[in-house]
Amino acid sequence: MTKKSFPLSKVYALLESGPVVLITTSDAKGRMNVMTQSWHLPLEFTPPLIGMVLSDQNYSYAAFYKHKECVINIPTAKLAKAVVGCGNTSGRNTDKFKKFSLTPVEASYVDAPLIKECYASLECRIVDSTLAKKYAFFVVEVIKAWVDSSIKNPKTLHHRGRGQFMIAGRTVHLNSKKL
Amino acid sequence: MTKKSFPLSKVYALLESGPVVLITTSDAKGRMNVMTQSWHLPLEFTPPLIGMVLSDQNYSYAAFYKHKECVINIPTAKLAKAVVGCGNTSGRNTDKFKKFSLTPVEASYVDAPLIKECYASLECRIVDSTLAKKYAFFVVEVIKAWVDSSIKNPKTLHHRGRGQFMIAGRTVHLNSKKL
Repeated sequence: MTKKSFPLSKVYALLESGPVVLITTSDAKGRMNVMTQSWHLPLEFTPPLIGMVLSDQNYSYAAFYKHKECVINIPTAKLAKAVVGCGNTSGRNTDKFKKFSLTPVEASYVDAPLIKECYASLECRIVDSTLAKKYAFFVVEVIKAWVDSSIKNPKTLHHRGRGQFMIAGRTVHLNSKKL
Repeated sequence: MTKKSFPLSKVYALLESGPVVLITTSDAKGRMNVMTQSWHLPLEFTPPLIGMVLSDQNYSYAAFYKHKECVINIPTAKLAKAVVGCGNTSGRNTDKFKKFSLTPVEASYVDAPLIKECYASLECRIVDSTLAKKYAFFVVEVIKAWVDSSIKNPKTLHHRGRGQFMIAGRTVHLNSKKL
């Protein structure tokens, strides 16, 4: 894995552009799963807090809710087939790692695995479930971040609904003073 | 304005790709403001619910919190200077509409204005403030949506922190079955 430890204070910037992510979990028997997700937002800079939707309709829910952990992995367009494949199948009857050639790598603080092929992986713990029943909304804290910093302008995927994915274009610097 | 009424059931798709938005408010005296924001996510398809961060450190907070309304406007890269300008200034001492050549247009259901130059505008009402104190997080319902549907692949802006903005690239169809 070419990812290296990444400063927690910069984690918000990985997610606020709205990339599709691959969320991994691990259950009590060590069975891993991965799901495709786009409904997330940063909630705080330091410690980095992320708000995310994970419904009890998702197979990953049981492991996520019981262990209170997950890894948020950020893929690039190279993984487009796996991203869509993981979104179109269920861990109930599919080993998605095997089927979509994703390599699980042991994390430092959580049982859920990092995905080797993703350029960034964020080890997370649930810190607030207040709105879980109402909106399937959880607040997680990123406790460890791994990023392949050699990728300067990642070609992240951004879902526009109904299978339309926007691929990240060029990056411009616009002299934002505040952040 | 070339924007037309847009189906509420499709609103989630406008935001789940993570574009920078311009949020407008109007206070008791009809004074309007606009702020730049990137921290939002869809929470429900129908009725469309959006989670968003708006801090009491923002000048817009008082009007937003009191009137429980706002408009979420989505700009394209043509408005990049206004987007950054609105992020770098405060409504305390700046008429941002005038300074950045943005045209307020009357909304249908809320006092906050639509921004004419944005390709989409979503009239919103606060429906849940449970996590407002803890994370400055609000749930709003989109009650009316306006979109310029002639723009098929909008060049939205996506903030990557510290003034780095990714401009939306090409869109590909990847046969997502579920959404």
